[in-house]
Amino acid sequence: MSRFLSPRWAELEPYAPGEQPRDRNYVKLNTNESPYPPPDSVIAAVAAQAAQMELYPDPDSKALTDAAAEHYGVRPENILMTNGSDEILNFAFLAFGDQNRGFAAPDVTYGYYKIAAKAGGVRFTEIPLKEDFRVDAEAFCETSEHVVLPNPGAPTGVSVSKADVERILQANPNRVVIIDEAYVDFGGESSVPLLSQYDNLLITQTFSKSRSLAGGRIGLGLAGPEIIAELLRLKNAFAPYNISRIDAAAGLAALAEETYYRKNALRIAETRDRTAEELQQRGFTVLPSQANFLFVRPNFLPGGSYYKKMKEKGVLIRHWNQPRIADWCRITIGTPEQMRILLDKSDELKGETEI
Amino acid sequence: MSRFLSPRWAELEPYAPGEQPRDRNYVKLNTNESPYPPPDSVIAAVAAQAAQMELYPDPDSKALTDAAAEHYGVRPENILMTNGSDEILNFAFLAFGDQNRGFAAPDVTYGYYKIAAKAGGVRFTEIPLKEDFRVDAEAFCETSEHVVLPNPGAPTGVSVSKADVERILQANPNRVVIIDEAYVDFGGESSVPLLSQYDNLLITQTFSKSRSLAGGRIGLGLAGPEIIAELLRLKNAFAPYNISRIDAAAGLAALAEETYYRKNALRIAETRDRTAEELQQRGFTVLPSQANFLFVRPNFLPGGSYYKKMKEKGVLIRHWNQPRIADWCRITIGTPEQMRILLDKSDELKGETEI
Repeated sequence: MSRFLSPRWAELEPYAPGEQPRDRNYVKLNTNESPYPPPDSVIAAVAAQAAQMELYPDPDSKALTDAAAEHYGVRPENILMTNGSDEILNFAFLAFGDQNRGFAAPDVTYGYYKIAAKAGGVRFTEIPLKEDFRVDAEAFCETSEHVVLPNPGAPTGVSVSKADVERILQANPNRVVIIDEAYVDFGGESSVPLLSQYDNLLITQTFSKSRSLAGGRIGLGLAGPEIIAELLRLKNAFAPYNISRIDAAAGLAALAEETYYRKNALRIAETRDRTAEELQQRGFTVLPSQANFLFVRPNFLPGGSYYKKMKEKGVLIRHWNQPRIADWCRITIGTPEQMRILLDKSDELKGETEI
Repeated sequence: MSRFLSPRWAELEPYAPGEQPRDRNYVKLNTNESPYPPPDSVIAAVAAQAAQMELYPDPDSKALTDAAAEHYGVRPENILMTNGSDEILNFAFLAFGDQNRGFAAPDVTYGYYKIAAKAGGVRFTEIPLKEDFRVDAEAFCETSEHVVLPNPGAPTGVSVSKADVERILQANPNRVVIIDEAYVDFGGESSVPLLSQYDNLLITQTFSKSRSLAGGRIGLGLAGPEIIAELLRLKNAFAPYNISRIDAAAGLAALAEETYYRKNALRIAETRDRTAEELQQRGFTVLPSQANFLFVRPNFLPGGSYYKKMKEKGVLIRHWNQPRIADWCRITIGTPEQMRILLDKSDELKGETEI
């Protein structure tokens, strides 16, 4: 710690994103990107905007916000567009949380929640998932904290039912309930239709997964006008020009390509279900996933070893050396060809292990 | 205030960026953008990267950081690349400031400093500029706060001498001194050569002005490895993927185009000096500027009226209704043709006023 640093950061934990190794070409199944590129119209929109990069972006991202409102069937005052969904999560933790009222999240969940909340001076409480990695809706009804829940779950892929989401919303009328729908387009059930009934609901989504724009950093929050207005105040204080001109253009073009993205999401869901079956046939335990990844326990090897040996074989997946999930790995769904390689390398590895 | 909002935000002031009206086409001289587009190579780099937008950017922006280090003649550990220079300023205020040790800045300065510092829970002290809008170096030597100073000044355009920067650095060995060099490429003297001598120096720069990339949101901090490491910890907690893939590609390509940008900066400085002369001939008071804008007092009209009437005539400049500068306006330097229009419309306005 330098002599300059404020003592409030003494215990700050940085977030560790999925590794992006540059040493060789991997079959990259570790950060839940789409295996399919953006459509030509998005690429063209980016190229067309590039010649105007000397001009600031619209700080209100008005064109993008209006188009997103139309897409989701809400009004522009129900939406805040952000630099990835991490940014909307940050604004929400900061806006509504503090040391006296924090956020409750599952114990096994997206690792960034805890980092962001604690960095923002927000109390963070973990509520254990059930034994089968389902959300304990009862416990979230009894909390006195704001709530943040990924649906489908991360890194499990397991969905929370709409009935459970509603129970949690009803049990917490004076607390914000964030439903993080980063992976909802691969088969989950969105809570967007609940927005008109619950002014404590904040839904976060991203263009990084189903819309093939992880490189474009576009996220958003959907909520009642009161919550959005308060998040907007924070945005204008912390990041007035949060979305670059080109990224906004990419996002806008993406909203006109629902057919393309829906087709890809379906393809990915099919590949996921086939891969799940193949892995189960090989003795893996596989959680029922509605996301673009599978959470699996190899059984023939500890999770950490499976991750490490697959990496040696050129297939990059994700492993967390954490309580409850150290035996598990998360596998992003790629193309059928990439999943074939994953299965073949797993067979190879199984052969080597049994010798 | 909603029932959800944390009380810590009760007095949050949002930042008001320069207006971006959509009602008509203005000669836009209000947000200090470059009037010249990015070079073809930058446009091509953006277009080439667009097809890979399904992949996350490198969270460390390593290629961009390495190229910037080479450009500035420092090592990669002396640099942190951010989503615009507002982001590096935010990280710095948060990292080093708090309620017990804040930041001191000129009373007339970039309005975002105060917003960002206060939003981050950082005490903010204003030290008056001298009567002629020069920085009172003596007063900054006597402060017990960290320091943030734009050089050249904003919105004045007036430079701080290298000798004064060094005096302030020497007088504050245990405090961080931020020199905000957003406008340094138009004739100011950079403090980069001082980095090796002062571990309390943090220089911020941006690609938004001289590099024609306001739409690309690329900023950076330059400092000793200790300060950079601490800023990086905050970045990894608050914005792990802060720079989009496309913006990073644009920034990288821009670093290979110094000749193009230097030529533009020279053209802009020439246009600025000619415009200053013309305005003085018309009775305006014009501060000596080393930036890509002029800070002027029209004299024949109050600043607010000049701004308003020029807007009616289709020329957008910037005015702040604030103590000490309510009689002044800031005019961004555009192309010679745009400045001709500014002068002609000013003549027109003067004619109307004298009737």
